[in-house]
Amino acid sequence: MVTTMSTQPPAADATASSPKGGANKMWGGRFAKAPAELMAAINNSLPIDQRLLHEDIAGSIAHATMLGQVGIITDEEARTLCDGLAGIKADAIAGRLRFDDQAEDIHMAVEAALTERVGAVGGKLHTARSRNDQVATDFRLWLRTQCTAMHDKIKELQGVLLDHAEGHAHTVMPGFTHLQVAQPVSLAHHLLAYVHALGRDRTRFADAAKRMNECPLGAAALAGTPFPIDREATAAALGFDRPCGNAMDAVSARDFALETVSAAVIATTTLSRWAEEIVIWSNPRFGFVDLPDDWSTGSSIMPQKRNPDAAELIRAKPGVVLGSYVGLATIMKGLPMAYSKDLQEDKVTTFRAVDETTLAIDVMTAMTKSMTFSPDAMRDALEQGYPTATDLADHLVSAHGVPFRDAHAITGRIVRRAEAMRCALSQLPITEMQAEFPSITEAVRPKLDVTASMATRNSQGGTAPETTLNAIAAQRAQLSE
Amino acid sequence: MVTTMSTQPPAADATASSPKGGANKMWGGRFAKAPAELMAAINNSLPIDQRLLHEDIAGSIAHATMLGQVGIITDEEARTLCDGLAGIKADAIAGRLRFDDQAEDIHMAVEAALTERVGAVGGKLHTARSRNDQVATDFRLWLRTQCTAMHDKIKELQGVLLDHAEGHAHTVMPGFTHLQVAQPVSLAHHLLAYVHALGRDRTRFADAAKRMNECPLGAAALAGTPFPIDREATAAALGFDRPCGNAMDAVSARDFALETVSAAVIATTTLSRWAEEIVIWSNPRFGFVDLPDDWSTGSSIMPQKRNPDAAELIRAKPGVVLGSYVGLATIMKGLPMAYSKDLQEDKVTTFRAVDETTLAIDVMTAMTKSMTFSPDAMRDALEQGYPTATDLADHLVSAHGVPFRDAHAITGRIVRRAEAMRCALSQLPITEMQAEFPSITEAVRPKLDVTASMATRNSQGGTAPETTLNAIAAQRAQLSE
Amino acid sequence: MVTTMSTQPPAADATASSPKGGANKMWGGRFAKAPAELMAAINNSLPIDQRLLHEDIAGSIAHATMLGQVGIITDEEARTLCDGLAGIKADAIAGRLRFDDQAEDIHMAVEAALTERVGAVGGKLHTARSRNDQVATDFRLWLRTQCTAMHDKIKELQGVLLDHAEGHAHTVMPGFTHLQVAQPVSLAHHLLAYVHALGRDRTRFADAAKRMNECPLGAAALAGTPFPIDREATAAALGFDRPCGNAMDAVSARDFALETVSAAVIATTTLSRWAEEIVIWSNPRFGFVDLPDDWSTGSSIMPQKRNPDAAELIRAKPGVVLGSYVGLATIMKGLPMAYSKDLQEDKVTTFRAVDETTLAIDVMTAMTKSMTFSPDAMRDALEQGYPTATDLADHLVSAHGVPFRDAHAITGRIVRRAEAMRCALSQLPITEMQAEFPSITEAVRPKLDVTASMATRNSQGGTAPETTLNAIAAQRAQLSE
Amino acid sequence: MVTTMSTQPPAADATASSPKGGANKMWGGRFAKAPAELMAAINNSLPIDQRLLHEDIAGSIAHATMLGQVGIITDEEARTLCDGLAGIKADAIAGRLRFDDQAEDIHMAVEAALTERVGAVGGKLHTARSRNDQVATDFRLWLRTQCTAMHDKIKELQGVLLDHAEGHAHTVMPGFTHLQVAQPVSLAHHLLAYVHALGRDRTRFADAAKRMNECPLGAAALAGTPFPIDREATAAALGFDRPCGNAMDAVSARDFALETVSAAVIATTTLSRWAEEIVIWSNPRFGFVDLPDDWSTGSSIMPQKRNPDAAELIRAKPGVVLGSYVGLATIMKGLPMAYSKDLQEDKVTTFRAVDETTLAIDVMTAMTKSMTFSPDAMRDALEQGYPTATDLADHLVSAHGVPFRDAHAITGRIVRRAEAMRCALSQLPITEMQAEFPSITEAVRPKLDVTASMATRNSQGGTAPETTLNAIAAQRAQLSE
Repeated sequence: MVTTMSTQPPAADATASSPKGGANKMWGGRFAKAPAELMAAINNSLPIDQRLLHEDIAGSIAHATMLGQVGIITDEEARTLCDGLAGIKADAIAGRLRFDDQAEDIHMAVEAALTERVGAVGGKLHTARSRNDQVATDFRLWLRTQCTAMHDKIKELQGVLLDHAEGHAHTVMPGFTHLQVAQPVSLAHHLLAYVHALGRDRTRFADAAKRMNECPLGAAALAGTPFPIDREATAAALGFDRPCGNAMDAVSARDFALETVSAAVIATTTLSRWAEEIVIWSNPRFGFVDLPDDWSTGSSIMPQKRNPDAAELIRAKPGVVLGSYVGLATIMKGLPMAYSKDLQEDKVTTFRAVDETTLAIDVMTAMTKSMTFSPDAMRDALEQGYPTATDLADHLVSAHGVPFRDAHAITGRIVRRAEAMRCALSQLPITEMQAEFPSITEAVRPKLDVTASMATRNSQGGTAPETTLNAIAAQRAQLSE
Repeated sequence: MVTTMSTQPPAADATASSPKGGANKMWGGRFAKAPAELMAAINNSLPIDQRLLHEDIAGSIAHATMLGQVGIITDEEARTLCDGLAGIKADAIAGRLRFDDQAEDIHMAVEAALTERVGAVGGKLHTARSRNDQVATDFRLWLRTQCTAMHDKIKELQGVLLDHAEGHAHTVMPGFTHLQVAQPVSLAHHLLAYVHALGRDRTRFADAAKRMNECPLGAAALAGTPFPIDREATAAALGFDRPCGNAMDAVSARDFALETVSAAVIATTTLSRWAEEIVIWSNPRFGFVDLPDDWSTGSSIMPQKRNPDAAELIRAKPGVVLGSYVGLATIMKGLPMAYSKDLQEDKVTTFRAVDETTLAIDVMTAMTKSMTFSPDAMRDALEQGYPTATDLADHLVSAHGVPFRDAHAITGRIVRRAEAMRCALSQLPITEMQAEFPSITEAVRPKLDVTASMATRNSQGGTAPETTLNAIAAQRAQLSE
Repeated sequence: MVTTMSTQPPAADATASSPKGGANKMWGGRFAKAPAELMAAINNSLPIDQRLLHEDIAGSIAHATMLGQVGIITDEEARTLCDGLAGIKADAIAGRLRFDDQAEDIHMAVEAALTERVGAVGGKLHTARSRNDQVATDFRLWLRTQCTAMHDKIKELQGVLLDHAEGHAHTVMPGFTHLQVAQPVSLAHHLLAYVHALGRDRTRFADAAKRMNECPLGAAALAGTPFPIDREATAAALGFDRPCGNAMDAVSARDFALETVSAAVIATTTLSRWAEEIVIWSNPRFGFVDLPDDWSTGSSIMPQKRNPDAAELIRAKPGVVLGSYVGLATIMKGLPMAYSKDLQEDKVTTFRAVDETTLAIDVMTAMTKSMTFSPDAMRDALEQGYPTATDLADHLVSAHGVPFRDAHAITGRIVRRAEAMRCALSQLPITEMQAEFPSITEAVRPKLDVTASMATRNSQGGTAPETTLNAIAAQRAQLSE
Repeated sequence: MVTTMSTQPPAADATASSPKGGANKMWGGRFAKAPAELMAAINNSLPIDQRLLHEDIAGSIAHATMLGQVGIITDEEARTLCDGLAGIKADAIAGRLRFDDQAEDIHMAVEAALTERVGAVGGKLHTARSRNDQVATDFRLWLRTQCTAMHDKIKELQGVLLDHAEGHAHTVMPGFTHLQVAQPVSLAHHLLAYVHALGRDRTRFADAAKRMNECPLGAAALAGTPFPIDREATAAALGFDRPCGNAMDAVSARDFALETVSAAVIATTTLSRWAEEIVIWSNPRFGFVDLPDDWSTGSSIMPQKRNPDAAELIRAKPGVVLGSYVGLATIMKGLPMAYSKDLQEDKVTTFRAVDETTLAIDVMTAMTKSMTFSPDAMRDALEQGYPTATDLADHLVSAHGVPFRDAHAITGRIVRRAEAMRCALSQLPITEMQAEFPSITEAVRPKLDVTASMATRNSQGGTAPETTLNAIAAQRAQLSE
């Protein structure tokens, strides 16, 4: 397969077109001159919003059908319009649709294609409608679908993590805080942290989809329309819960995009944390995880390299998605009512955020599935960092009645002794411990074992194997809801 | 009243303290040396997180009570701890609580105050708990309250807007798109756009409050605890729906703060749009709105000035709140599990966002309440910009059967004639119209009146007075839910 | 001209390619399996970085030439490599270059094309080089060129503003603060504010170009190379001031991109302010500016509309560019040395920022050139807002010796009298003024004229016509430097 | 030492003050009513801008002196004003200055204090001046000082890094790319990467200070002034290079703050990368660096913990500083000329960015100074990851004439053999290598030693000890410039 090499920047491709030979066909009535070339370059959005083609056609079919039903156009006209629109869709699917690139945007392009196909009746489609409500409808339809898709993809990733977790409820590894060894935890417990976080991440997309599920169609430019339209009918036909309640708000609001992009920022941030761990765990000093060849890349100069590039790229994605959020929020800030052209930038920013998020989830799911973990390396790492010091302190509390704060201080001093002797706590002679707390006995020894330690933390949500297996089962149940 | 003048920057005040004479009392066991002064300056968070005092005490009381109930400490010990904590709270309310500023943070400060008050038993409070789960609990409790407060404040602002709308369903003004005159709308219709947007804005805070309403307490450092604690009990005592399901996630997640701050970004963005309109409408060329003296400010040099400063400041607020979101998201990106100290910056960013949002809503509510509108100025403004051109086009469609696209083009040319004659459409001689569309008659004239135009747009969500009054009633009903 | 309609999202186009049939040719030695399809989708950057083709070839020619000069390869080999590279460039310019889309990036694609063309000797090109130093070199070369281009384009816009200013040194208009009428200024004075701001904006691009002008080539992967290369030679050949001083920094730093993008944020922010004024001034209540038909757009529904879409889109651009800055900064934050794959996202963010900025400057220049201003409308607007109140206060100071603060207060009360009488200050009877300040006489009258007022403000940088004309001349001189 | 516990949020403290009993003293002439309490809460900036006290006094002394010199006020009046201002400054330094908190901002507060002290002549200070030019002057003065301070502090950090580097030119460690072992480098080489990056970081502050060094004073509200002021004189007295060239730009521009904050974003990003490495290197699996007790913190629950909290907090700082940048840029976007109140938010965002950056540099300098490095741990880490594979490939090129690409592939296969045998490259039997490349001999063995490998990379900017020591000397020379 080959890619045509272009020496032109993509952006230039997108904008260099469209020298217009005459006045705009759709709104040029009062204009003596066509737009300047540079004006067209900044104004035309077809290269971006052509992505809304299917939504635009669906919206227009719903609108035309309704116009027919209420008698604003005849049944036959409605049928002609709908058939024409269906034909355009079929052509697009078949890859034989071509648009005049003088078209300002996807809405104008579809209407022009329609009129070419069905004749003057095509001009009736835009009755009781404006591009303002049309684009808001298309965009909501598209974003609603994407929210559902991202929601479902996250669910899949949760499933993959649960699969790994299930096999590793007894795999003990260092739990880190501040990237320092804290306490022994199971790999399953660690992976479950992401399952839970992702569970919230996906409900944000669901909430966003629900809140945006009101139909702008029929709001017209900003004031509604005098035509006796049936907004309930078009809303229902397009799967919306109801029409938007205020026409001016319907065409001016982009809060739904901001909310969705924020959900994407948060979700990719969760992914970036797991990605960072994959990078660290792949370092040979850790060696906790092994990425197969097909998820590693090499170096052009260093022949030994096997780099976790995909994890690094996922780690970077929240930056790009956050950039979209900032872009969109900055654009919206201080915009007076109703529609302003600044809103056109909503799509390039939102599309980018959704694309990057979708790719990041897909890649993370496949890469996580491909991983194998190294329980041996994890256990090796537990030799360092005194992971059972808390168990020692807890033992002083529960077996010797020492207030926790005092137990903490005594244990700290015992750790310093182990450090001086360069041995693990579990190997420290009892006499050394007694030097700090005379009444301690060998009864403490089993508490200092990492596996035993892990097993004791059976409070709800804790890392004990049985507790963890219950949590896995509960999460599985949620996934199959 | 006087303010003490400080020549020191506030930040320096906040950080210059705490030269520590000895090792930290809470975790100094294994340390030979106390923190360096600069270390304390960057590390200590008491000047910031003292704001969580009441939440910290509430969490500790719930924890101590539970420790007593399950027998980890005696009933008497539990009572002593709870009484001590209640005493600290009472002192704080009375303004006589003072903390040792060697305290690293509010948690350590409260525990130190408690121990000073109740003796060594104070050291038992931290049994089966870590600062990691403690701070997450405090922060969620605080933010949950703030979400509810912001939700309720927005409701109040909606009410104020509805009050104005109710009186202005018949006040006709230019509806703008691109800040150009588009169509006549009522002031009520315009204000309702904000009522609807704010309605969504407030449900985001409600959703955030609900999603965060799981209790981290008992997650301990990251692994749970071997003590036989009752997490359901503490969760219930603190009004949470349930305990967090995974201990590591419980201490590491800050998605709840990001979600809340995003809701604040979106809500202040809505406010900034209304603020921008107030600024424009206050300009003497518009004169649509009049701010009373107590909502205007003057100039130090220009004696005539009456500036809408509060509106400008509200317009700026989304910038500051967005800054908090970016700060927090950037901090979270790529952080490995579990708790890392970077998370300490969550509070200063979130507090700032909540404070600015709260202030912005409060000010906007009071300022909006104080406004009076100028229907005369609004009507004057309708003389320009041909606001009923769409009505003319619609008339060609419905009275003459012209396809909308053609009607649009004909109207465009008629507008050019009016422009050339420097008259409004409603004053344009019929002969001029007939030059573009021969069969048009004087029957069109009533369509060109702005009040009549507005009245025709009675589609659902449209600007017709009756439609608008129905919408107002529906919104009122929602507010009293 | 036609655009092929794609029903696929662009991002999918960019990523869906490259199922690899075998191990990577460039680094696949130690790999048993080729990258997974999704791995390739996230990893391959050719669709983005193909834009660096010419810079990549230039860098490779400099490198090959140097390898020959110092004897690492033979002169003939060097010649073969350079000729091959020149051939690729020629093909690209002629539009007949096609790349294997299995190529991971532009560097691999060029090397593969070269080897295909010149045989095995192509493999010698990468001696003493890594993609790490190669991409850093390409990127700096490209960005250096763009900085110069943006600098020069801004200069052009300054020239256009100066042309307008020159004709309007006597055109009096309301100077606004808080969008309230402040004092009379000339349109020239107002336009000069942008000339000055843009003057600083362009020097930031020049500074960035200068600071980045050090050559990474020869840093190799991160440690330098044992080959006896001549870094001074390649640096000089590519127009750099010197080689980068540390190999690890050379491959890891992206501060130069951040600095450039920040300069773009600031420059587009300046443009957005002028754009906002164009939008406001185009509103019929102002009517200060007139955009010709070829810089206006219409509405699909409202036939009378002439919208300043280009100005609105420019107003939106700082949001998008700021998004790039945030994206890039977030990606760089906390990245350990040396090269990490996260850096690959530097290009898509920076390209976007540069493209949007370039387009915004170009459009603003052409649109500004096309404008005409309405001195009559500006003068009308001066009837409101008491623009000469400061002159009255100044008169009390200089003619009557009143301390400025008292003069300010007296004038404020006189303004209230004018407001009550609904007249301009210049029309207020002297008796009304005397009621507030008894010794005032008709000598004040000339001070209250807006043209006279403007003429008095002849302090350096002030709005008096002569002062302004001097400032214009000084700016012209700077532009021709 | 004790901290007074406040149960009120800091923001509330900052805003809850100032119920005004009457009209504003400075601009209240035309107002019938004083600001509403909430209006004052959002409007008053004294709690923030009191930090500009010394700059405000310096600016006023320069202005008063000039007013006297040109004869706008008498010499005696000028002397009285200057003495009064000097007295206020002395009081502030002595800690006995108190301001009426009805004062809107620091400018009003100082003027009120002056008038109280010197009587009615205080009212003459504001002649030929506005708060618009005054605040811009104060802010530039303050920021210029901060830029110099941050510049110098970075220099200090560079010095500390050079001190460490000097002792570690022979300390070999794994150079990482993608956090995978790449090639052996010296610790000095690694530290030098930061020295070079910081060198650029500090010049950005110097450039910003230079570009902002134009004096707004005398621009008055936006139009200049009719008083015969001498702007050159005040500019010179305050150390500015010249007066701002356009009065409207002088009061409206905040590009200088954006540029400075961007420099702070970039500088803290550099710090965050070093901070991330400190965190990773402190992990026991690495153990490359040892933080002393006074730069470590403990855990409230885990007695063994020694956490690198300061490094983590520095890692977080770019987030906060970036938040300021975004806040300020968003506020500036689309603001019409000239001064709008939105600009008031410039200070809180910029102050925050400067404070955090200053603290981060100071802490990083002190912490870095306190560190000790573990050459043994670094050498241990080189046992893994095949760090000399590139040397093997280079050997195939230079000793056997193999094209680099082929050498790369052969080496990759040899690495796979070493991996299978679980041995380092330097231990791999020659027969294994010959199985991939028959003519290789034991002559390769010395190339595979990490120290030898490092010593060979003596290209300019490379890691060879001698090269590095030269680079250190060159950097030292730059620091003492």
